[in-house]
Amino acid sequence: MTGKNLKIEDIGEFGFIRSIKDNCLFSHNGTIKGIGDDCAVIGPYDGRVILISTDLLAEDVHFILDKISPEDLGQKAVAVNISDIAAMGGTALHVFISLAIPGNMAVNILHSIYEGIKKACRLYRVNILGGDTSASPNGFIINVAVIGEAPQNEVLYRSGARPGDVIFVTGYLGDAAAGLKLIKEEINVPEPLASILKKAQNLPAPCPEAGRKIAGSMLASAMIDLSDGLLSDLGHICEASGVGANLYPADLPISDELRSLSRIKDIDPFGLVLSGGEDYKLLVTVPDKNVESFQKLFKGGNPCYLYRVGRVVEEKGIKMISADGSEKMMKAAGFDHFRN
Amino acid sequence: MTGKNLKIEDIGEFGFIRSIKDNCLFSHNGTIKGIGDDCAVIGPYDGRVILISTDLLAEDVHFILDKISPEDLGQKAVAVNISDIAAMGGTALHVFISLAIPGNMAVNILHSIYEGIKKACRLYRVNILGGDTSASPNGFIINVAVIGEAPQNEVLYRSGARPGDVIFVTGYLGDAAAGLKLIKEEINVPEPLASILKKAQNLPAPCPEAGRKIAGSMLASAMIDLSDGLLSDLGHICEASGVGANLYPADLPISDELRSLSRIKDIDPFGLVLSGGEDYKLLVTVPDKNVESFQKLFKGGNPCYLYRVGRVVEEKGIKMISADGSEKMMKAAGFDHFRN
Repeated sequence: MTGKNLKIEDIGEFGFIRSIKDNCLFSHNGTIKGIGDDCAVIGPYDGRVILISTDLLAEDVHFILDKISPEDLGQKAVAVNISDIAAMGGTALHVFISLAIPGNMAVNILHSIYEGIKKACRLYRVNILGGDTSASPNGFIINVAVIGEAPQNEVLYRSGARPGDVIFVTGYLGDAAAGLKLIKEEINVPEPLASILKKAQNLPAPCPEAGRKIAGSMLASAMIDLSDGLLSDLGHICEASGVGANLYPADLPISDELRSLSRIKDIDPFGLVLSGGEDYKLLVTVPDKNVESFQKLFKGGNPCYLYRVGRVVEEKGIKMISADGSEKMMKAAGFDHFRN
Repeated sequence: MTGKNLKIEDIGEFGFIRSIKDNCLFSHNGTIKGIGDDCAVIGPYDGRVILISTDLLAEDVHFILDKISPEDLGQKAVAVNISDIAAMGGTALHVFISLAIPGNMAVNILHSIYEGIKKACRLYRVNILGGDTSASPNGFIINVAVIGEAPQNEVLYRSGARPGDVIFVTGYLGDAAAGLKLIKEEINVPEPLASILKKAQNLPAPCPEAGRKIAGSMLASAMIDLSDGLLSDLGHICEASGVGANLYPADLPISDELRSLSRIKDIDPFGLVLSGGEDYKLLVTVPDKNVESFQKLFKGGNPCYLYRVGRVVEEKGIKMISADGSEKMMKAAGFDHFRN
C-alpha cells in the first residue's frame, strides 16, 4: 500500500496522532503540558494552572440516539470531560458545547440533551460559557471543551510512574462495556441487572473528588482516567513514564452485576475489564513508601473505594501474573476509533 | 405546529441559542463573560483574563472538500478562531483540534489539513495543545477551541456601544461572500479576479494586530468580528448595547475586485457586503471624542485600513441612509445555519 492510498483506518487513531504531534508548539512560554496527557496545562497564573481538554461524541460512533435517552447523552458528554480534569487532579470550572445538528432534528430532543448537559453541570458545579451551533448534513455531533484549575504543584501527569509503585484503580471495571454489549447485541437479562449495567454505559460516574484528593495529597506519582480500557490506559502511563507493569487478575475489581452477567450469559468478564473502556474511574500509581498513608485517605470508601491491582516494573510491557505464578504478556488492546 | 413536532430548522440557530442560554451559570466566581460575545472571559489571573472560543466546521455546510484545498481548510479553521480572540482585543495562545473523520478518508488529505493548521499556527504564533480524534460515519468535522489572553482592563465587549459613537470596519467587505458565490454557482470570471475572490473565501485574513491595538488604546467602546455579515454582526452589537445604528451605503468599503465582479456579472455588491458574511474583519464603535486619536492609531494603513461606515443611534434597528437623505430600515439578515 502506498502512502497516497493510505486510509485513516489503515494507520488507526493513535497512528494518526503520532503522525501529527510534532511541531505543535510554537512558543513554550506559558505552556506546561501539550499533547499527550488527559489535559493540556497552561500557566502558571497566581500559583494556579489552567487545565483544558476536549472530547467529541459522534452519532453512531459513540452513541445511537435510539439507544440512549437524550438527557443521558447530554449528561455523559459533560461527565467524560469532567473525568479528564479529574485525571490531572484539577477542579472543572467551565464547559463549551459545540453541536452539529441535522436540520430535521426535533427541538424537544435537543432541549432534553441540554437538560442533561445542565444537570451534569449542576452536579459537577461547572458553568456553560459558550460553544457553537452548526447544521450537520449527516448525524448529530457534540464536542465538549472543558476548562479546569489546579494548584500549580498539585497536578498529576501520566509520566511520573516509577518501578516499584503500586497501581490502584478507583472503582469497578468492565460494567460500562458490559452495558454496551447488552445494548448493541440486544441481549436480554433480568432486571435490575440490565438497568444497572446499561446505566454504567449511558451515565458514567467520574471521580472528581477522588482526583482532587489524590493530587492534593502529593502521595501519588501518576494518574490517568480509564476511558479506553485498563490495558490501553495503563499502557499510556507506561509509555509516558518509560516503565512496564504487572497486573494481578485475581485483584481486578469486578462488580457483582458483571459476575452475574458472566455467569448467566457465559461471557468472560476479563475481556471487558481489561479492554472494554468507558469506565471513567481513575488509575493511580503510588510509591511504595506512600501506600499506607494513601490508603488511609480513602478510609471507609470515601469518596470512593480503592482497589490495588498491580505494580509498576522496570521491564516494558504489561504482564498478567496469575495466583499460580504463571505470567502472560498482554497486548495493549484498547479502543481505537478506526480499528475496532 | 406543536412543540413536539418542532424541528431545529423551524426555530433557527439563534432561536435555539436563545432557548438554551438560561441557567448556564452555576457559579459566578471567576466568570467575567459567558454566552453572548465572541469569546467567554474568565479570571482574572494576575491582572490578566483568559479568553475562550470555539468554532465547528462541518463538511458540506462550511466547506466542500472538492472546492477547497485541504491546506486552506486547515488554515481557515484556525483563522476563524483567531478572529474571535481578536474581536475581544486578546492575544490568541493555544488551539485544540477535534476531528471526526470518515474511516475511508485518505491520510494524505488529513496530513495536508494539518499542514494548513500548523501553517496558521506559525502565522498567528499559537500552539496546538490537544484535541480529540474520532471516527465519523458521515462527513468530516473539525472543531477548533482557542484560548487567548488579554490584560484585565483591555477587553472589548459587544455591549459597550453608545448613541453618537462612530462605527468603523477594518477592511473590505463582501469579497469572501463573492468568492463563495463563484465557487458554489461555478461562475466563470477572468483571472486574477476569480482567484482573489475565492482566496477571500478560502483563506480569510483576520485582524489580530488591529484587535489588540484597538483594545489596548482604550479609545473604542465595543467590538465584534464580522463572521455572519455586517447587518447581523452590527445587529449583535446593537442588541447587546441596547442601541440602533445608521449605515451610509456610500461609505461601505468595496474592493476593486468586487466592483469588477458586480459590473461583469451584474451582481448587486451591497447584498454581499451587508449580509454575505465570513469577512473576518473587525467592526468597532468609537465615542465621537476619541475618533481623531483612534484614526491616528491606523496612520498609513498600519496594521490595517479603517473605514468609517456609520453611527450608533438611540433608536433601535439598523437604518441605511443614502447620499440623497432617503432612509431604509434593514432586516438583520445574517447567516443562520438552519434558515438560509
